[in-house]
Amino acid sequence: MKTNHCKIVDCTIRDGGLVNNWDFSIEFVQNLYAGLNEAGVDYMEIGYKNSPKLLKGADQVGPWRFLNDDFLRKVIPQKGNTKLSALVDIGRVDEDDILPREESMLDLIRVACYIKDVDKALDLVQKFHDLGYETTVNIMALSNVMEHELIEAFQMIRESVVDVVYIVDSYGSLDHNDVKHLVEKFKQHLPNKRLGVHTHNNMQLAFSNTLIAAELGVELLDASVYGMGRAAGNCPTELLVTHLKHSKYSLRPVLDIIERFMIPLREKEEWGYIIPYMITGTLDEHPRSAMALRVSDDKDKAVEFYDRLTTPETAIPKSK
Amino acid sequence: MKTNHCKIVDCTIRDGGLVNNWDFSIEFVQNLYAGLNEAGVDYMEIGYKNSPKLLKGADQVGPWRFLNDDFLRKVIPQKGNTKLSALVDIGRVDEDDILPREESMLDLIRVACYIKDVDKALDLVQKFHDLGYETTVNIMALSNVMEHELIEAFQMIRESVVDVVYIVDSYGSLDHNDVKHLVEKFKQHLPNKRLGVHTHNNMQLAFSNTLIAAELGVELLDASVYGMGRAAGNCPTELLVTHLKHSKYSLRPVLDIIERFMIPLREKEEWGYIIPYMITGTLDEHPRSAMALRVSDDKDKAVEFYDRLTTPETAIPKSK
Repeated sequence: MKTNHCKIVDCTIRDGGLVNNWDFSIEFVQNLYAGLNEAGVDYMEIGYKNSPKLLKGADQVGPWRFLNDDFLRKVIPQKGNTKLSALVDIGRVDEDDILPREESMLDLIRVACYIKDVDKALDLVQKFHDLGYETTVNIMALSNVMEHELIEAFQMIRESVVDVVYIVDSYGSLDHNDVKHLVEKFKQHLPNKRLGVHTHNNMQLAFSNTLIAAELGVELLDASVYGMGRAAGNCPTELLVTHLKHSKYSLRPVLDIIERFMIPLREKEEWGYIIPYMITGTLDEHPRSAMALRVSDDKDKAVEFYDRLTTPETAIPKSK
Repeated sequence: MKTNHCKIVDCTIRDGGLVNNWDFSIEFVQNLYAGLNEAGVDYMEIGYKNSPKLLKGADQVGPWRFLNDDFLRKVIPQKGNTKLSALVDIGRVDEDDILPREESMLDLIRVACYIKDVDKALDLVQKFHDLGYETTVNIMALSNVMEHELIEAFQMIRESVVDVVYIVDSYGSLDHNDVKHLVEKFKQHLPNKRLGVHTHNNMQLAFSNTLIAAELGVELLDASVYGMGRAAGNCPTELLVTHLKHSKYSLRPVLDIIERFMIPLREKEEWGYIIPYMITGTLDEHPRSAMALRVSDDKDKAVEFYDRLTTPETAIPKSK
């Protein structure tokens, strides 16, 4: 498998933060950065660059939700080869918060959006690009996008300055054929853009789908250590560093992070292949219903949950 | 994806028995059979048909290690559409134990062997075939087999009566390219045989590899409910029944089994994607060293374990 072109973007803090409300200690993040840097991982997405002014409940979450350059300089006083990335959401970012790249700790700013907001995402991308950052646009929930919407988005993207366009399997519902179909379509319509992929593990296909995409030429591969990410989690960083044919990566520093930080963390926080997430994945749905189930007393009532999601509203009520 | 040709062989009791010493209650097995039958699963491998006379410590394991037809008739008084299968190991089966198929509860007998014993496996297959059973030969540890050994084995298999030949990824070390390579080779050399696949989940590729094999024409797909199987476990039955394009399968009865039996069982017994198993998988090794680690006090010491497996014996001793 030819994957020399690939770069790994570790999203442990950013996507994993959706699991624990970004409650990572500075020590945790510093150790993660050191480990990823030693492992040869190309990018670390260290959080969101949203504005606390534009989000409710901002005082209840960790600092990785609203990255601040002064803070980041204290966290990582000495940068290694691993670049730093941040994600922003449409409507939650204050553009005045973003320093020019040469004054910032960040190298890459990624904009996540649904298909209907690609135009807004590209406006932001233009601003970040003008400030000197590498940029990506991450189109979420692609499994629920209709062909004509995608074609329209492609036209705008093609004419934009964005460096990389992401295929995002938000619901963990895609298999290798779906990934192949999407990558081929993106390549066909966006011949001037590099591609990225972000997967979720609802059906235990996150790693496999990432490998398939890599082999088809996708360059930026999102992953997280021990798969930590919302709900079923992501493609595990440890599997990519050991399996990609790319001599610069090494597994040992990632194992060290897992042993010292992720195994104890997984005792307290939950993510991964868990049946309700498998159910939303196979039904091609957002995991929010399963996330709600998992914090309820009925967390293991898989059949009732499945019935609820698959019974049309017109079904006969169970009891009078 | 065209997978109409596929049949699922659920190995929960047989391969899962390697986790809990076949300590499944009769109620558990009866419920599993009912659930699999309702889900449309084609075969249930209900254990090993080895002889207690030929195995040490036979009195310390559950009855599913040494299936007996009188016992089976009590367990499953009424068979549904789901056929019953048993596995035998070379040198551990007493051929006189095997009834003619019309007097037996079993439909399928599978013979597991390493490449060097394919001749012995085929001798057994001939006997089971003559007794009226469907037969398979399951060649284990294919990732460690040299080309010329395989070619030699193919010749014997081609001329044998065996119905199905299995590709077995014993170490969970294969990726989709490896599976594709093996399936193409098997198809080329065994044009007169049907194929099967048995995967392990050390690198979270068991389901994906099974799908890839199915798409390439492999017919019998091994799986187990909630992935229960030795070490990292197998391809999860629930994922196959929901994802294979084959209208006869249904997910709900499998979810019911998971909810009532597998979730509580997983609290007591351990299998699945666990870092030491990932390490033996990526190193293409038998998981026995990782299994020993997992029952020791050092069960989460991943780095030390990795170092031990990757340091040549000639390395400088750590201390004098």
